[in-house]
Amino acid sequence: MKDPCFLTAAEAGRQIRSGSLTSEALIRSCLDRIAARDPAIKAWLHIDPAQALAQAREVDKRPPSSPVHGLAFGVKDVFDTRDLPTTQNSPLYQGHQPAKDAACVGVVRHSGAVILGKTDTVEFAGGGRKAATRNPYNLAHTPGGTSSGSAAAVADFQVPFAFGTQTSGSHIRPASFNGIYAMKPTWGVVSREGFKQLAAMLDTVGWYGRSAEDLAMVGETFRLPGFSGSKPEAVKGLKIALCRTPRWNKIEPAGEKALKTAAERLEKAGAVIEELQLPETFAGLNDAQDTILQGEAAVAFLPDYLASNDRLHVEFRDKVENKTGITPKAMADAYDLAGASRPAFDRIASKYDAVLTPSAPGEAPEGLGWTGDWVFNVMWTLLHVPCIAIPCTVGSKGLPVGIQIVGPRFGDGRLLRVAAAVAAAIDVEERPRTVQ
Amino acid sequence: MKDPCFLTAAEAGRQIRSGSLTSEALIRSCLDRIAARDPAIKAWLHIDPAQALAQAREVDKRPPSSPVHGLAFGVKDVFDTRDLPTTQNSPLYQGHQPAKDAACVGVVRHSGAVILGKTDTVEFAGGGRKAATRNPYNLAHTPGGTSSGSAAAVADFQVPFAFGTQTSGSHIRPASFNGIYAMKPTWGVVSREGFKQLAAMLDTVGWYGRSAEDLAMVGETFRLPGFSGSKPEAVKGLKIALCRTPRWNKIEPAGEKALKTAAERLEKAGAVIEELQLPETFAGLNDAQDTILQGEAAVAFLPDYLASNDRLHVEFRDKVENKTGITPKAMADAYDLAGASRPAFDRIASKYDAVLTPSAPGEAPEGLGWTGDWVFNVMWTLLHVPCIAIPCTVGSKGLPVGIQIVGPRFGDGRLLRVAAAVAAAIDVEERPRTVQ
Repeated sequence: MKDPCFLTAAEAGRQIRSGSLTSEALIRSCLDRIAARDPAIKAWLHIDPAQALAQAREVDKRPPSSPVHGLAFGVKDVFDTRDLPTTQNSPLYQGHQPAKDAACVGVVRHSGAVILGKTDTVEFAGGGRKAATRNPYNLAHTPGGTSSGSAAAVADFQVPFAFGTQTSGSHIRPASFNGIYAMKPTWGVVSREGFKQLAAMLDTVGWYGRSAEDLAMVGETFRLPGFSGSKPEAVKGLKIALCRTPRWNKIEPAGEKALKTAAERLEKAGAVIEELQLPETFAGLNDAQDTILQGEAAVAFLPDYLASNDRLHVEFRDKVENKTGITPKAMADAYDLAGASRPAFDRIASKYDAVLTPSAPGEAPEGLGWTGDWVFNVMWTLLHVPCIAIPCTVGSKGLPVGIQIVGPRFGDGRLLRVAAAVAAAIDVEERPRTVQ
Repeated sequence: MKDPCFLTAAEAGRQIRSGSLTSEALIRSCLDRIAARDPAIKAWLHIDPAQALAQAREVDKRPPSSPVHGLAFGVKDVFDTRDLPTTQNSPLYQGHQPAKDAACVGVVRHSGAVILGKTDTVEFAGGGRKAATRNPYNLAHTPGGTSSGSAAAVADFQVPFAFGTQTSGSHIRPASFNGIYAMKPTWGVVSREGFKQLAAMLDTVGWYGRSAEDLAMVGETFRLPGFSGSKPEAVKGLKIALCRTPRWNKIEPAGEKALKTAAERLEKAGAVIEELQLPETFAGLNDAQDTILQGEAAVAFLPDYLASNDRLHVEFRDKVENKTGITPKAMADAYDLAGASRPAFDRIASKYDAVLTPSAPGEAPEGLGWTGDWVFNVMWTLLHVPCIAIPCTVGSKGLPVGIQIVGPRFGDGRLLRVAAAVAAAIDVEERPRTVQ
């Protein structure tokens, strides 16, 4: 029998509901795995094993009341937790202990999940200090960012679920680099309260798992739209748009192979693949996202700048001081391009069951100083649409590479069902082994 | 000489900078006023006089470094404060002590302002329990809501500045009911972090003062767009659009008189007034705002619902349970109508120096059970545009009535300068005396 830490959340949840596994046993297994692996992977910033086990024992006393009952979450250290420090990986917040859980933490905690610990992150999920976390398939490579620790911990079987965030490409890209599943839901359908704001129009809470079913369990817990009356989707007959995006010139061989392989496997399984060329105006969305990020981050970090200018990383000081020279007109234009593009994309996406598109240019880059390019993520973040990352192939460096599927806003429930069908068709290779 | 509490923030600031007033003396005067008046007005939920005085003494040791140096803020009790409880006027948060200031509190605190205390609010700034606060001009009347205590405290000379919020009409309407000035800036230019989220696309931080100059001091502290290279505006030659809005049928005689009087006084002072008819599609914005509020509040209160369903007020439980039946399509349609209307309004507003429009239907209603109608506010909130409330007339019940001026997004600095000119022309009547 597998140690419980190696079960997907879906498998562990079934065993907990049937009485063959306790939350306490699952947490013990995760803690053992972390103890053995963290010196190499460095995914965690704060863990309190006794407290996690105490939570699990409490949960075990209650009957399961939600899909995540008894399961464990890692929490990116940009979300407030009432029982663990929240440091943002920033010198300004070392030892900071919030009084209250962030909204997303509260939702799963009050649904019977165990908060296992806080995961390492790029500073403020936005820049400055990198996470110390390493890619579990090759320690010389980045796990991606900014949700570095969350993605690596789930990939390395240290925790079944973890929360991340995406403002540019911080959530979906690390999923690809770590061979795991990720969901970035529609903007606004999961509360960001208790997350250190980076950019109000962009920040989105997401989660990682090791199967499409795992992602759906969290989606159901958050009552995402489109769950009621759901029936599983069959891959046969699915109509999938293949979208190379206006930034296809940034694709690498491994990313190209993953997208091509995904399309071929889907076609072989009976799906219909159609090339999708986005309207020309969409070419401006990546720049619009960057404008909004710069302008909104200047607002977000003003309190920190005034409180402790010298300890705020220069990347954030520069934003507050508007070193890139963002103008009010540029902000309004960026908001309005996005505002016009969202319904346009929804109309396009609604003609398909999903839009298939890269998660990242290719494999995880070597080194920890660069977490990889978010060029294939920012447009979707700005469009506010749900995105689901699905593992697909292995690149020439032996690292996993995934793709993402995208749907119209509020199509979250439907997209999760399509993801399960797509995953069954394309996630068919053995994942490379994590380092021993 | 006036007791310092009766000075506008601008007057007190000048005296502090010249050395003729200390922050400590100002705070003492405010605390004395509160001690005398709070039993009747009930604007405050938490005050710690010793702590406020200690802050003032610290501030007095430092040279002024910002426009709000040494001045005092009341803070609506939906914003986290590190040194005072934050209860949301909700049974769920009684005694809750945050570990960190909300972003807006941090910005003014780190700019040398004193946090005087927390003001009463309608529960979660959204519904449920009403504030106990009374209208300082007539205790039998509401001060409006949801920023009830903040508006009444500023009107009653208990504090020069106070923070409020506007998601529907919670900030501008109480300004009119209390004969004070208010600014709701462009959405996104002031961070809402540390505010209990109600609706992500709508929530806006605002502030109250007793002059247009007061409002500009806070605007400058927050580095609002349009401050650099500013020159005062003269009222002569200003081009003002008179906008009755698609809901003019809701106006009451006192509101009609205030708008008419404002236009007449402006015209007399040399401004050009033009009637503005908004495009027909704008008639749908009020309903769109309500749809978004219902849909986003369901997301915001899910953690509280799961944590303590029985203590969460039924108005919020109903939102989480989607009792109004908001559909995903309705949400997307509402977002998209707003997305299309924002640039359309900016184009209209840019032809004028300001748009003149009602702040509220009329005088503050009698009783504390109904805080008045937000019908003249919600469209502007959804459009994300800056709004400035300016006092104008007195209604037949002896209560003050104001108007608001509105500008294009990111026109905050300019609108503040126009507000100073407009105020000089229209805020020319003696305010009724507050109750003795």
